[in-house]
Amino acid sequence: MKRTERVGAMLQILRENPNKVFSLGYFCDLFGCAKSSVSEDVSAARRALDISGFGRIETSAGARGGLRYIPSISAKAAESLLAELEKKLQDRSRILANGFLYTSDIMFSPVISRGVGQIFAAKFEGAGADCVVTVETKGIPAALMTAEMLNLPLVVLRRESKISEGSTVSINYFSGSAERIQKMSLAKRAVRPGSRALIVDDFMRAGGSVRGIADMMREFDMEVAGVGVVIASKEPVKKKVTDYFPLIYLGQVNEDEQLIDVERNPQIFESVFA
Amino acid sequence: MKRTERVGAMLQILRENPNKVFSLGYFCDLFGCAKSSVSEDVSAARRALDISGFGRIETSAGARGGLRYIPSISAKAAESLLAELEKKLQDRSRILANGFLYTSDIMFSPVISRGVGQIFAAKFEGAGADCVVTVETKGIPAALMTAEMLNLPLVVLRRESKISEGSTVSINYFSGSAERIQKMSLAKRAVRPGSRALIVDDFMRAGGSVRGIADMMREFDMEVAGVGVVIASKEPVKKKVTDYFPLIYLGQVNEDEQLIDVERNPQIFESVFA
Repeated sequence: MKRTERVGAMLQILRENPNKVFSLGYFCDLFGCAKSSVSEDVSAARRALDISGFGRIETSAGARGGLRYIPSISAKAAESLLAELEKKLQDRSRILANGFLYTSDIMFSPVISRGVGQIFAAKFEGAGADCVVTVETKGIPAALMTAEMLNLPLVVLRRESKISEGSTVSINYFSGSAERIQKMSLAKRAVRPGSRALIVDDFMRAGGSVRGIADMMREFDMEVAGVGVVIASKEPVKKKVTDYFPLIYLGQVNEDEQLIDVERNPQIFESVFA
Repeated sequence: MKRTERVGAMLQILRENPNKVFSLGYFCDLFGCAKSSVSEDVSAARRALDISGFGRIETSAGARGGLRYIPSISAKAAESLLAELEKKLQDRSRILANGFLYTSDIMFSPVISRGVGQIFAAKFEGAGADCVVTVETKGIPAALMTAEMLNLPLVVLRRESKISEGSTVSINYFSGSAERIQKMSLAKRAVRPGSRALIVDDFMRAGGSVRGIADMMREFDMEVAGVGVVIASKEPVKKKVTDYFPLIYLGQVNEDEQLIDVERNPQIFESVFA
């Protein structure tokens, strides 16, 4: 087996298993090579990742040591994803009645949710989260991709408690978007008390549903490790949560003037790619 | 730039963009190489994929020709995914009242939904689907991963029509699992009449919700290109849809005897890996 093939295969295997630790011995066995060869393969794989701009390899020493692939997105790829998001959001045909914007196609897009997941994973990599949590429905793709990149389980709060969830804890909260009291439920067996949750959602207006998720986490003696939202509205300025990381700020959506005010979070690049 | 680095970078770029066609010229520009070198890189990348067992590269000639990565899963990786699924499903602590099984952790798992998506993508690769369609909520991860692998958009039918969906079409259908009439809605702008949908869902009992999705497709003059479900119950034998592809058959769930009858679809290997 040639080095080129070994490095290619190594990258594929690591890429399919983000944040999973593989021992050098795993690749020695797979390739029938000495550790010194595999170490050189790792160096070549690193250089290949620098060129492609996707992710990096981290090595750790010790008995549980080895190598793992940390998925990421280059500043250039993030830039082009954000530019695409902005462009899509400014498409006037998205304007619905009452200042709402149609975003389902964006939030359910595999390509966009993958990019969003890569940015959130890069941002919250060191936050010590044990799971990613969202509330159904439109935040699920971004949350799933984030969870995949961080090699964490995804937990989805439901609007209604289902018989297939077993016993659940429910809370009521006020949703500014829906302008009414809403409910969310979480299966008791879905989470581990004392663990830390990274909250991901598609849209934040006043922060009611993220606040609801955070309150639910407290019911389970869990801590919030971070909050990532794809879009946060500029109004109201005062949200029900203080610490959150949006990719895009959405200002006025004016039906008469066909105006959609979209602005990128200026802190993405310094906080993720610095 | 060495061949090893070029091949590694090429694989990463292709892997991040499943089923997207790249011209040879794209890689010539990126690597600063002649076409003959890039052609040799492609051959080496192919051999690396054979070793890792994930996906393959297809090349096509002509003006719109080039190469694309077709994600797949080796028979060995599929085997280990299915074995894990079976083992998890047979865990007796999943048994809920009334013969229900708790499966949310499985359906929301990034690792399992990715594997399911890879198997469905391999199965339905030639079905000519234009989009993947599911109904919220637990089928979304498998459907999203399938859509990502096939480079298709994902369309999610909602239980309730939301103001943020714009104008919608709704239908009522009988759900055997919920034992009641349920509703599903689809935004008019979510799909293109005349196109073909691959339906993916987490669980099928009598087939009411898949039948509902198929009926909805007809409302939009769309055709069903295929149906993939993660789990199908053995009973009732007669379903409301005839043509569907499950990964796992679920038989009796007996609370008193703590019995969970789980069986793999014996046709997976011949129909996907033959």
